[in-house]
Amino acid sequence: MNDQYVRFFDTTLRDGEQSPGASLTSTEKLEIARALARLGVDVIEAGFPAASPDDFQGVQRIAKDVGVSKSAERRTPSICGLARALRGDIDTAWEAVKPAEKPRIHTFLATSPVHMKYKLDMTPEEVIFQVGEMVTYARSLCEDVEFSPEDAARSDPEFLYQVLEQAIKAGASTLNIPDTVGYATPEEFRDLIAGIVTNTPGIEKAVLSVHCHDDLGLASANTLAGIQAGARQVEVTMNGIGERAGNTSLEEIAMALFTRQGIYQLETGIDTTQITRVSRLVSNYTGIPIQPNKAIVGENAFAHEAGIHQDGMLKHNNTYEIMLPETVGLNRSRLVLGKHSGRHALQVRLDELGFSLSKEELAEIFKSFKLLADKKKTITDADLEALVEDWVYRAEEIFSLDGLQVACGTMGMPTATVRLRDQDGELHIQASVGTGPVDAAYKAVDGIIQVPNTLLEFSINAVTEGIDAIGEVTVRLEPKNGSIPQRTSPQSGLTHPRSFGGYGADTDIIVACVKAYLSGLNKLLNAREFIQQAELGSARIKQAELPNEPA
Amino acid sequence: MNDQYVRFFDTTLRDGEQSPGASLTSTEKLEIARALARLGVDVIEAGFPAASPDDFQGVQRIAKDVGVSKSAERRTPSICGLARALRGDIDTAWEAVKPAEKPRIHTFLATSPVHMKYKLDMTPEEVIFQVGEMVTYARSLCEDVEFSPEDAARSDPEFLYQVLEQAIKAGASTLNIPDTVGYATPEEFRDLIAGIVTNTPGIEKAVLSVHCHDDLGLASANTLAGIQAGARQVEVTMNGIGERAGNTSLEEIAMALFTRQGIYQLETGIDTTQITRVSRLVSNYTGIPIQPNKAIVGENAFAHEAGIHQDGMLKHNNTYEIMLPETVGLNRSRLVLGKHSGRHALQVRLDELGFSLSKEELAEIFKSFKLLADKKKTITDADLEALVEDWVYRAEEIFSLDGLQVACGTMGMPTATVRLRDQDGELHIQASVGTGPVDAAYKAVDGIIQVPNTLLEFSINAVTEGIDAIGEVTVRLEPKNGSIPQRTSPQSGLTHPRSFGGYGADTDIIVACVKAYLSGLNKLLNAREFIQQAELGSARIKQAELPNEPA
Repeated sequence: MNDQYVRFFDTTLRDGEQSPGASLTSTEKLEIARALARLGVDVIEAGFPAASPDDFQGVQRIAKDVGVSKSAERRTPSICGLARALRGDIDTAWEAVKPAEKPRIHTFLATSPVHMKYKLDMTPEEVIFQVGEMVTYARSLCEDVEFSPEDAARSDPEFLYQVLEQAIKAGASTLNIPDTVGYATPEEFRDLIAGIVTNTPGIEKAVLSVHCHDDLGLASANTLAGIQAGARQVEVTMNGIGERAGNTSLEEIAMALFTRQGIYQLETGIDTTQITRVSRLVSNYTGIPIQPNKAIVGENAFAHEAGIHQDGMLKHNNTYEIMLPETVGLNRSRLVLGKHSGRHALQVRLDELGFSLSKEELAEIFKSFKLLADKKKTITDADLEALVEDWVYRAEEIFSLDGLQVACGTMGMPTATVRLRDQDGELHIQASVGTGPVDAAYKAVDGIIQVPNTLLEFSINAVTEGIDAIGEVTVRLEPKNGSIPQRTSPQSGLTHPRSFGGYGADTDIIVACVKAYLSGLNKLLNAREFIQQAELGSARIKQAELPNEPA
Repeated sequence: MNDQYVRFFDTTLRDGEQSPGASLTSTEKLEIARALARLGVDVIEAGFPAASPDDFQGVQRIAKDVGVSKSAERRTPSICGLARALRGDIDTAWEAVKPAEKPRIHTFLATSPVHMKYKLDMTPEEVIFQVGEMVTYARSLCEDVEFSPEDAARSDPEFLYQVLEQAIKAGASTLNIPDTVGYATPEEFRDLIAGIVTNTPGIEKAVLSVHCHDDLGLASANTLAGIQAGARQVEVTMNGIGERAGNTSLEEIAMALFTRQGIYQLETGIDTTQITRVSRLVSNYTGIPIQPNKAIVGENAFAHEAGIHQDGMLKHNNTYEIMLPETVGLNRSRLVLGKHSGRHALQVRLDELGFSLSKEELAEIFKSFKLLADKKKTITDADLEALVEDWVYRAEEIFSLDGLQVACGTMGMPTATVRLRDQDGELHIQASVGTGPVDAAYKAVDGIIQVPNTLLEFSINAVTEGIDAIGEVTVRLEPKNGSIPQRTSPQSGLTHPRSFGGYGADTDIIVACVKAYLSGLNKLLNAREFIQQAELGSARIKQAELPNEPA
């Protein structure tokens, strides 16, 4: 591969998915992975397979689907699974990624004094030994192994050179340098990478990678500084999601390299015109909103005050615009379809939006489309995306909404009556009062589906113009007790309860709220069932649920 | 002033307020200015007084209130008004800021080839001449004059040195270098500032300032690079709001300098413990949300996965945390008051939250507090903030909500009945159907208040935990025709219609939606009245409405 090529390693599905509330089902993960492949990323880190049986399955589905070549036109991305430097984790990661044409195992061990002492309780010598052992082991299974010294930015550089030398000797072909806590300044990070290039024996055999966090707002600058010092892989997430202030934003690095090509003189495989679409998909599935002033993908990123382009004097585009909206696939024309549009017109537009649906799926979406077109004169792209996503969520229903009736207002007795249909077709009805119509409706649902849970987040967006448009609601809930699905954190090794996101869309905002709550509850119920199946299922997956043993 | 002191020039109320939808009333601006003074900023750019009579009044109110010393403990910030390099703009800015103890006029003229040619239609020689004339004129009125060469980052450095030399000779004591289009990389920007320090005759007499935009996600890194090259003023906005991808975030620079004190070795006047509060205030008043993964002020910025701190092995705080939440005033304990809390307890808590209310105001808030406490067991800080803000908005009511009755659900005939009270106490009632309950209610309101408008934005947030909590709604609307209030853009000189934000809070989300819409409509009606008054009022303000003359 040419020296000026920068690989994009997308970790939206692993580090991004560790953000509070970003919990995705394996179907959602698959959809996002498909979109990332269309975007042209080189490596998809699809998850941490040892976290839970559900995470294992998510990675495996992506390896089998997105990890195998579908057409001659498009490169197939590598599919990567994260593993602690533990034999069990590495086995599990390998099982999950091996169906891919280009599987990769990514293993890591902390190298900073504070992490070695307080988290690992290991000496520097033990760390070097463990890195050698585990990279060798991973390499015995998989040709493509990546190693990360966790908290590298706060590690002793001399020690880091030794650890990296050991990883290279053991067969790692990518060495990733994370600023785990988002502490570095661009100069420090550039010096760190330059030092590694100069002082690590054998470094020319590996690709150097950078992985930054945005705690001080410097993730993009640090990543670019790393590239300038010689890194040729960037670890990024769409919209910069991730724990705390998140990871480096894929879109910012892609567009900085593109817009300032004259400075950086580097190539990437990214099709920038896919950026807006993937960004919205990730925001909708994770329920993590994008602020309007977010660079590249924020709603206002390309907006200028009204009128400024109408002035003849300013028609020279780059007076205030350094990037064209079209470059990131932002299509300003929003009116698409209406009441009289047929199934073919709908299919063509959905294709253009990147949804590849089967005939049956299209038929279902067309039904919702017609219902919507009766209520609303023009159907926009955002409406269509909401329809498709609403449908994707409904596909895994255990309880479905059969009827809702709400009375509320300033008289102070908001009342909701809910009728749900279970999988056997039986109807359940319940009425309840609450502090508001949503509270009343949720209490009525709780009266039917008795799963004690805490509502961690609740947000409503009117996606499209006008108040007559579809409203979208996302919720996130956590089960309170009972058979709670657990996930293991790759960093701490601790298990914690999974939380579940729900999504609903409707022109009636209260109906959308109830749909969202139901979809969250359905996911929770599905996860419980999955866990029960997994316990009865293959021993291989059970082995993945490692005890929190010292390494 | 000591060489290691970095001045914070906050332009939330000027450049930040130019973001689509951030349109603030002068009461809101005053509240934000008070909060910025508590935060410890050195200069408040309060607006562009020549934009409209409303903007003029907003700056003047801040100059009279926040610009004069209130206590010996706190420094009084400079109050700055923006002016194009035009005599009329400078006159207007001076009239607006002169009541302040430390008034400043900030004037600017573009220096990049593309701006000089396509926007100004001026030769470089004409630009230098105009800068000399207008800085001299501003200096004849006001001791403290700041000059900015607009689009400096794309200007010819040699030309820039000449322009800046001229500005210094004419009496400018602050020279601000803007990367107007957010195009620079940190290295470029550092080199630009270093070049100015080395090559501009007389530069030692002025304070050098940097003003960056975040189009490529590099605003904070560029600002820090500028400081390292010698700048001692940073122009920033709270939450990084501003046109397109916004300005440099105040909170990121403050916390980078604080957290990496060892590297930067610089001082500021910022009280970091005020950051969270000011951030929320700005988000609530502007209606511009903050994404959860926003550095420093995002909801997740300090969040770790559940359980990680409970593990004895990880009790060493800085394993994953480089900043303490307390440093930015993030108080994790949320439960505050309940049904049995008295007026005194409420006052004490509101004081702690930074609200200084009169006895009458407190009495009003206490009434709402009691009503809320009847519905909800525990009242959190966020609930209290919502109550106060809801009340602030209601203070300017022309129409108030007297009653609302809503029926909706899956039966498909969402109906709302609205009863409004006008300023004369007369009641108006209207019923309407819509695509959903909000659409129906807005149609009913429109039936009473006949002001054709376009709803540009609509968002709902459940601010507090649990679905029984207060829901907050923000809207933004633009009048469609009639006597539309206009504002002049400082950059393009064009006028465009103002848009108006509205805010409502209630446990019933539909009630909150109607309150928000009403508050937006009330603001619009107030602005119309203000314009009529202004036309009858002082000639001085009328002079501010400059024709779009060539400079």
